[in-house]
Amino acid sequence: MPASEKTLNDLFLHTLKDIFYAEKQILKALPKMAKNAESEELKQAFETHLEETQGQIERLEKVFEMLGKPARGVQCEAINGLIEEGKEVMEDFADSAALDAGILAAAQAVEHYEITRYGSLKTWAEELGMRDAAKLLDQNLQEEKRTDLLLTKLAEARVNTKAA
Amino acid sequence: MPASEKTLNDLFLHTLKDIFYAEKQILKALPKMAKNAESEELKQAFETHLEETQGQIERLEKVFEMLGKPARGVQCEAINGLIEEGKEVMEDFADSAALDAGILAAAQAVEHYEITRYGSLKTWAEELGMRDAAKLLDQNLQEEKRTDLLLTKLAEARVNTKAA
Repeated sequence: MPASEKTLNDLFLHTLKDIFYAEKQILKALPKMAKNAESEELKQAFETHLEETQGQIERLEKVFEMLGKPARGVQCEAINGLIEEGKEVMEDFADSAALDAGILAAAQAVEHYEITRYGSLKTWAEELGMRDAAKLLDQNLQEEKRTDLLLTKLAEARVNTKAA
Repeated sequence: MPASEKTLNDLFLHTLKDIFYAEKQILKALPKMAKNAESEELKQAFETHLEETQGQIERLEKVFEMLGKPARGVQCEAINGLIEEGKEVMEDFADSAALDAGILAAAQAVEHYEITRYGSLKTWAEELGMRDAAKLLDQNLQEEKRTDLLLTKLAEARVNTKAA
């Protein structure tokens, strides 16, 4: 199809594949982040988010079904870069006093990527009249926002503990 | 230096270099996004943000100066990936009805990356007792948040225009 003939439907499907790929990569990365985190709260946050991520992938599969398309991801350079940066920080700050601060920041960068993608997808689903899909995407969006908020709280708590 | 001896100072400097590199890449990408955008408001938003980005880079240079370090960037795979995705969407949806929607989403993903990085940097600057640096970083953070809000409004306005 020539680029000029593409529609919002195509953009929606492409972005859905992008976040589907991203969630699968996050599913693989989370156990390593939980393993490397020093604080028990942070480990727990990652383990909880791992379960949530499995549920989010199932919701995305439902949206693919609504579109009558196979649930398939597409390489997403952004999430690859974000996860790569997380790995680097875990190596570069292994066993250091700043390890959890670095892991927290890396995880928040991933959350923000998901928040922005789900925000766009939800807006487009509404525009396309796909109310049920918009609902599922909003559920994922709200979970990501809650996770980001929890990570912010953990980052602040870390600072306060150090200051005390 | 062994990884285990690194401190929050090292993490702060590394992340400062990361966002410095990111801002410079964004400075290069913005004119192309302005050129490709179809709506005048979106073009204008990118041109305004281009000027802001120059000011943000100057603030970062001041923070480097406060640390007594040369202002130098470090390859950041995340921003490379985000900008790459923006380029792809501009090619894949050239002259299509969904072009601006795609450009808006790509720009918002970049803004969210900056928001999360400035959020971490500001928290760490406060923890390290660098009050003036925290102030400069907060100025950048607030500008990015305002830009993201403006882009959200443009995205919603686009939907309403189509629906009318």
